[in-house]
Amino acid sequence: MSRIAYVNGRYLPHRSAQVHIEDRGFQFADAVYEVVAVKGGVFVDMELHLARLHRSLDAVRIPSPMSDRAFGMVLHEVARRNGVEEGIVYLQVSRGVAPRDFAFPKKARPTLVVTARNRALADPRLLETGVGVITIPDIRWARPDIKSVSLLPNVLGKEEAKQHGAYEAWQLDHDGLVTEGTSSNAWIVTPSGELVTRQADHSILNGVTRRGLRHIIAEENIALVERPFSLAEAKAAPEAFLTSASNFLIPVVRIDGAPVGGGAPGPVTRRLAAAYARYAAAGGQDT
Amino acid sequence: MSRIAYVNGRYLPHRSAQVHIEDRGFQFADAVYEVVAVKGGVFVDMELHLARLHRSLDAVRIPSPMSDRAFGMVLHEVARRNGVEEGIVYLQVSRGVAPRDFAFPKKARPTLVVTARNRALADPRLLETGVGVITIPDIRWARPDIKSVSLLPNVLGKEEAKQHGAYEAWQLDHDGLVTEGTSSNAWIVTPSGELVTRQADHSILNGVTRRGLRHIIAEENIALVERPFSLAEAKAAPEAFLTSASNFLIPVVRIDGAPVGGGAPGPVTRRLAAAYARYAAAGGQDT
Repeated sequence: MSRIAYVNGRYLPHRSAQVHIEDRGFQFADAVYEVVAVKGGVFVDMELHLARLHRSLDAVRIPSPMSDRAFGMVLHEVARRNGVEEGIVYLQVSRGVAPRDFAFPKKARPTLVVTARNRALADPRLLETGVGVITIPDIRWARPDIKSVSLLPNVLGKEEAKQHGAYEAWQLDHDGLVTEGTSSNAWIVTPSGELVTRQADHSILNGVTRRGLRHIIAEENIALVERPFSLAEAKAAPEAFLTSASNFLIPVVRIDGAPVGGGAPGPVTRRLAAAYARYAAAGGQDT
Repeated sequence: MSRIAYVNGRYLPHRSAQVHIEDRGFQFADAVYEVVAVKGGVFVDMELHLARLHRSLDAVRIPSPMSDRAFGMVLHEVARRNGVEEGIVYLQVSRGVAPRDFAFPKKARPTLVVTARNRALADPRLLETGVGVITIPDIRWARPDIKSVSLLPNVLGKEEAKQHGAYEAWQLDHDGLVTEGTSSNAWIVTPSGELVTRQADHSILNGVTRRGLRHIIAEENIALVERPFSLAEAKAAPEAFLTSASNFLIPVVRIDGAPVGGGAPGPVTRRLAAAYARYAAAGGQDT
């Protein structure tokens, strides 16, 4: 089955799917995106992803290219045409094509690109072994809560993690407090058994998986505190993990090379991973 | 004459010039660029632009797609095919096309796009009337010295300026000090006749026009101090102006609605604008 992409109303062979060189997504990072997990043919928390997409579009004042009903149809159709039962659907909306000028163009129709990819989600091996993270300064713009494609610092951070044999880079603000990973949210379990993750203000992206997990945490009666935590606190934590749409929940067992807890996934992390897997299989909060 | 664009070795009609939807320039802002002024058929400070391009490429570790000699040939050819005697040539290099993944792809050939546009440079009316600027918080990433296409904050800032009837937005750091405009460097003249512009560290882009003007300032024996200046100092300055490759030097006569100096371009600004026009017509320092 050859891959199919959706570009502005047309379903095209992936290899020949293109955008104009003066698309503002290409020239200005003037675009936002979402990555939605598909598990057993079910879209996980589609409504939350679309709600966040609208929040991002509104924040940068790009008009929505279509209704949520139409988005849903296109996303399902791209998944179907690519035979994605388990994988991710990627959607990107840019401000459109216009002669290059920083200010918004008077007339431009937003560009919508949707792709889908088969891939295993929530790799069970990673859940067994856990992963390592490094820490780097958070050098991103002041609005990472907007899911824009201004991702160059994230790219450089992820590459640095890879160079160090780590899976992710946790970013530290000016006060040495963890904001989040380059493409995931960061969590720790404190010695008293509380879960801690940074509050969803302008400093982090409010992950849909993060939101799903909050829902589960409330149902499981685990204490959650949303506040910043320091690198020192993370290194001393009995457990740590990260969350993202395509990986669900992955234990973090090394920070800057030092083991977290016993250097193996802990009980709270395992319990939440299992609960989230059930939640995702049911389509999240949508269903 | 219909417009022609260069994309990865081919000269194409501008309207059908495209890049792949998985070009990392489109998905990750994983790309850098230059804008070179052409005046009387002469490229202004081409060597400085190419040197800065290599600095940006090196900083984000994108390999150069060609030699400087080849860059020069392509840029001249695009200008020629578009009949550009006066205007700008735009070039963008992305890390290339690869399946979406934050870390650098193992195999990707950088994408090179070059366009050219006829336009009047250094509009003489703006030199007569001057322009207004507003001020906004600098919310960009920590490395605006790298000329990347991570320009969404610049886009939002320029649009805000436009909404306020201003020409540009000067960005203020956490200490209330001016960094630069969204697509130009910022300068003031102090009451004692010194020129002040922020030092070219990581906090600003080291403009090629800024560098050309430094050259002229040294030759004209005007005192220049490279240091940050505050909004208050700028508002109290007898003269202010901005510099960019496509506008050369434009007097700033209003900041946040309040007149600068007498609300009209001052003598130092006029003298430097005339000197820079001569410098540009000769091709800058290259010749």
